[in-house]
Amino acid sequence: MTLEKTILEMAMASRQASLQMARCSTPMKNSALSAIARKLDEESENIMAENRKDLDRAGEMGISGAMLDRLTIKEATIASMIQGLKDVIQLQDPVGTLSRSWIRPNGLEVSKMRIPLGVIGIIYEARPNVTIDAAALCLKAGNAVILRGGSEALLSNQALSRVIGMGLSEAGLSEKAVQVVPVRDRAAVNELLKQEEYIDLIIPRGGESLIRFVVENSKIPVLKHYKGVCHVYVDRNADFDMAMEICFNAKVQRPGVCNAMETLLVHRSSAEGFLPKMAEKFQSAKVELRGCEKTRRILKNIPVATEADWPEEYLDLILSVKVVEDMEEALAHIAKYGSNHTEAIVTNDYRAARQFVRDVGSSVVLVNASTRFNDGGELGLGAEIGISTSKLHAFGPMGIEELTTTKFVVFGEGQVRP
Amino acid sequence: MTLEKTILEMAMASRQASLQMARCSTPMKNSALSAIARKLDEESENIMAENRKDLDRAGEMGISGAMLDRLTIKEATIASMIQGLKDVIQLQDPVGTLSRSWIRPNGLEVSKMRIPLGVIGIIYEARPNVTIDAAALCLKAGNAVILRGGSEALLSNQALSRVIGMGLSEAGLSEKAVQVVPVRDRAAVNELLKQEEYIDLIIPRGGESLIRFVVENSKIPVLKHYKGVCHVYVDRNADFDMAMEICFNAKVQRPGVCNAMETLLVHRSSAEGFLPKMAEKFQSAKVELRGCEKTRRILKNIPVATEADWPEEYLDLILSVKVVEDMEEALAHIAKYGSNHTEAIVTNDYRAARQFVRDVGSSVVLVNASTRFNDGGELGLGAEIGISTSKLHAFGPMGIEELTTTKFVVFGEGQVRP
Repeated sequence: MTLEKTILEMAMASRQASLQMARCSTPMKNSALSAIARKLDEESENIMAENRKDLDRAGEMGISGAMLDRLTIKEATIASMIQGLKDVIQLQDPVGTLSRSWIRPNGLEVSKMRIPLGVIGIIYEARPNVTIDAAALCLKAGNAVILRGGSEALLSNQALSRVIGMGLSEAGLSEKAVQVVPVRDRAAVNELLKQEEYIDLIIPRGGESLIRFVVENSKIPVLKHYKGVCHVYVDRNADFDMAMEICFNAKVQRPGVCNAMETLLVHRSSAEGFLPKMAEKFQSAKVELRGCEKTRRILKNIPVATEADWPEEYLDLILSVKVVEDMEEALAHIAKYGSNHTEAIVTNDYRAARQFVRDVGSSVVLVNASTRFNDGGELGLGAEIGISTSKLHAFGPMGIEELTTTKFVVFGEGQVRP
Repeated sequence: MTLEKTILEMAMASRQASLQMARCSTPMKNSALSAIARKLDEESENIMAENRKDLDRAGEMGISGAMLDRLTIKEATIASMIQGLKDVIQLQDPVGTLSRSWIRPNGLEVSKMRIPLGVIGIIYEARPNVTIDAAALCLKAGNAVILRGGSEALLSNQALSRVIGMGLSEAGLSEKAVQVVPVRDRAAVNELLKQEEYIDLIIPRGGESLIRFVVENSKIPVLKHYKGVCHVYVDRNADFDMAMEICFNAKVQRPGVCNAMETLLVHRSSAEGFLPKMAEKFQSAKVELRGCEKTRRILKNIPVATEADWPEEYLDLILSVKVVEDMEEALAHIAKYGSNHTEAIVTNDYRAARQFVRDVGSSVVLVNASTRFNDGGELGLGAEIGISTSKLHAFGPMGIEELTTTKFVVFGEGQVRP
């Protein structure tokens, strides 16, 4: 069978399965998730055996330590997949709930009802745990899903997909509700992105080049997340101890993730009092600082931050620092160099907090808290399918509700339009 | 200046203006809308003079009656534009409102705040009234907008855009918040669709070929509406008088629009009692009926509906009719041939109503009311920017709220991630 035909048939089967999923009750969906968890446990040896084949192949291809690590499925990985499924079972099912309702003057009762999106395609890189996490969230929201993981993880993902299929069957649901693209060829992604008739949404998860590729080639709507160039702004009227804790946490606690701080903005009247102590704390954690001219008048031994630094997502223990004249300059800097991801202000000033919250257009805006809280779990959405930095449909962390949409439901007694 | 450069500069200026618009208070936005209404009145002669040039040119190009009619700006057209502006002034401003909020165990207060989308591009066909309607809704929601109307309406649209600019200036806002693409060349659309860095959303309004062109070529998210193949299902247990009124209204009141009924589905046990009287009523309005075999056993003199009829959007006084065995067959027919637009059931049966509402996946599902109510105004959204038949971001009629998104706002007292 040609690749074209393989993908088309998957997409059509997924659309068909999505009709069944959309009509599925919450207990049925939960029993499928339970069955998948049980099968994962029973089949763990087999999954790890398939994973070892992927690891061997990756090793032969010279794939490096960190990537190999992300590819590895250990017993603990499976335990965490099972826990993930249990967490999703606990989530409230949004499907069928009415989000609003109102009455029209002619007596029509109008309401908006949550419904599944339909078919979701997820395109991701090496980590096979995404296979279970993403499938579980999509299923709970009543969707069918097509998964395209990293080519290095193909055998692992196929093993996981068989286990998911066993769970779905046991619960009386179609195995086609979750499918893994069965080929390594990257052309499969192009084919997938053409199935706008059958697929409602594509979510790419991975590096910027993967995401750009998907956006350029997709006829299907894409929820995307390019990068996180996150700022903390320490205001004129800030508690310096609090600011130190927040900035340190935002930069150091996990520097390699998208919600870590990349640029620190400091009001000029806080700079002298705050920066030296803050720099000392950062240096204790081996953070490399790069500063604007005003910063370097205070922190004399740090290198200059160039124009290339401000839009940079370091994902590392590097931080650019800028002293600003006032809030306006901070806002302008964020608007120019930010990525609409996460920004925080540290302040004790009521009006400054209000202005920052209102005028920063990023997906998550925090007052007196670390940027590291931009995360579905931390913000209380339950599990997270990703973070959107584009504004359509979802902006910020996406939980189960973002995998649904709403339709209008109208009850009448014979109304017609005059 | 090259076309490429013209469009890029428009997009950049629009982004800049959108930052100002996003920070604009409701009174300021309303005063701009009032000023535009006033200028429309003052400049009406000039607008109609420019419109006559468009009409002359269109006449020379052999453009036909109905299209010429849609292109014409009369005094009544301007009066209705002014009324449209007044209606938008009355709409509640969604920007800055909190849609939900909750507290995390660590004390963080999380809420979702409505914010403008940013820059919206609208690509539409002949009617110049869209220029004012769309601009007004986008402005009220705090967005900047780039308008690309039909090439036949260029001079009219430029005249309207100058008037909008006067109103914006008078209210102290940037004229760049509303811009009309100043060239007829269709290549301008392609250029517009590349500006993903500056434009957040594209809304095409027009025929299916325009919309497909936009979807194929856009790197920017698109809210689209292909077609409306709307169904009414007359259940076993229906009030035939009510069903007649609803079906007649859905087909005849305005057959050329997307929410008109195109296919009538009738439960087999209602067919004998309902179809002859309904057919008589339809024939009084010169509706051409086309039926399935079972229908033609009852309505003997009508032609057969072929496989080509079921997915057809007639937009005319033509109706295909099918007798179904039961609700399941009706649902399957809608899932196969429908366009996710609007479906109605006429029934007195509680369980049938519930099942239809739950299992039909269309953007508007009605019980005992005409399909013609799928309209932003009729459903109470105020003015309408279009109807979305794709599920991302908005599904169904889109009002002012659909021109916004939400960001997360988080208030803390120094929380960091452990």
